Amino acid sequence: MPLPAESEKTGRGSLAIVGLGPGRREHMTGRALEVLASAELVLGHSTYLEPLGELLAGKEVVSSAMGKEVDRARKAIAFAKTRHVAIVSGGDAGVYGMAGIVLEVLEHEGAEIPVEIVPGVTAATAAASRVGSPLSGDFATISLSDLLTPLEVIGGRLEAVFALGIPVVLYNPRSRGRPHNFAYAVEIARKHLGPETPVAIVKNALRNGEERIVTTLGAIEGSMDAVDMHTTVIIGGKESRIWRMGDDVRGIITPRGYHRKYVY
Amino acid sequence: MPLPAESEKTGRGSLAIVGLGPGRREHMTGRALEVLASAELVLGHSTYLEPLGELLAGKEVVSSAMGKEVDRARKAIAFAKTRHVAIVSGGDAGVYGMAGIVLEVLEHEGAEIPVEIVPGVTAATAAASRVGSPLSGDFATISLSDLLTPLEVIGGRLEAVFALGIPVVLYNPRSRGRPHNFAYAVEIARKHLGPETPVAIVKNALRNGEERIVTTLGAIEGSMDAVDMHTTVIIGGKESRIWRMGDDVRGIITPRGYHRKYVY
Repeated sequence: MPLPAESEKTGRGSLAIVGLGPGRREHMTGRALEVLASAELVLGHSTYLEPLGELLAGKEVVSSAMGKEVDRARKAIAFAKTRHVAIVSGGDAGVYGMAGIVLEVLEHEGAEIPVEIVPGVTAATAAASRVGSPLSGDFATISLSDLLTPLEVIGGRLEAVFALGIPVVLYNPRSRGRPHNFAYAVEIARKHLGPETPVAIVKNALRNGEERIVTTLGAIEGSMDAVDMHTTVIIGGKESRIWRMGDDVRGIITPRGYHRKYVY
Repeated sequence: MPLPAESEKTGRGSLAIVGLGPGRREHMTGRALEVLASAELVLGHSTYLEPLGELLAGKEVVSSAMGKEVDRARKAIAFAKTRHVAIVSGGDAGVYGMAGIVLEVLEHEGAEIPVEIVPGVTAATAAASRVGSPLSGDFATISLSDLLTPLEVIGGRLEAVFALGIPVVLYNPRSRGRPHNFAYAVEIARKHLGPETPVAIVKNALRNGEERIVTTLGAIEGSMDAVDMHTTVIIGGKESRIWRMGDDVRGIITPRGYHRKYVY
């Protein structure tokens, strides 16, 4: 099934679902900036709208709280019937962001509005870029939020990916509503991976207030409190190791496999 | 282990490992553009350097072939001892890109050079943004290239992630050197997922020559030839479904789970 051409766009309004990347303007794409500049109305959670500052000057801004995603999606679609609307997500809008729910509501309403999804730098690679190269090869991303996915489903996924020994990126590792989910994930990881397995805890990656910790599964107890809802955690795989320069810990390297073919 | 502060940078040269995103300039980040602008010397595969055009004007450019990554990493480090060097990857440099091998060589040589990794929009989310929201929740990325990873290891990973029923992004699905790996992956997917499971084949996502096909595991035979080395394939999970507007196939939606909590 080849997809319909984009020239089929009709009507006066439009809807852009925009991934803002990790936060600072320098890590947004040119297309994200362009779409925001041409939007008449911008919707999003206040955490993501605030750093946009002057980019929103002269626009109508509809800010809403976490947990109000369905309501925000409905509003965006209603406005987009007649106006140029942008709805924003942190990171990439298609990964734990607004794209899915907006399209679900759009499909349900049968509203014919031109839609553009603008990809952004997702939290997994933003965090990885601050601690070496932990995701050089295959990896999995798992959210520890049990708001929309039952905890036993999350647990089953963690068992499988840790058993596989590929690096795992944990999104939403901890919040007030789920203080124990991260400890639960660590417990499952330890069943499958040794205590020397490297772990990176990256808070506010490429944003103000950035903090980075590189530790191991065996020594992680001392760093549990550093994990919060602004944090992305990367648990290395069976081939991941600490990256050192002299005595300094610099981050994590997951070798891609060149060492099996080349001498360097 | 908190990481050393970046103010410890010394010496005259520097090395930036830059993710260029899917290809067109509008999908590069501001930081990637800035780092390229200030580089004296840029290294990369010609596929990624050519679209940069005038961004490289006045710079020394060292283009090398696919398969020469170790050599390119060594050269970049040698140059970066005295000059400002950028080494580029398509997508995000930390995902199947140059970051891993550059850091491995750097560590081996013990060279004290300031290094910055600039994240970019990775192929998984670039492709996803063109076919709806197939990666709304947890997912895995697996490369089908057996150049650096034995095929039996790849097969084992595919078995596990398809059994889990989360969406899977296949990088490097096919090349002249491995014409059968994609068919092998489809065969494994079919053991775990039904024929109605949606599949997206996205060639040259957000680049010139873009082609998008949305099909299913049961009907994929007719689209096997569309898969090549410029293609990213997304195989949906157990909850993924085709996104339709009226009779039109628009893409894939993997619901995040809002339907379990809200009526819309």
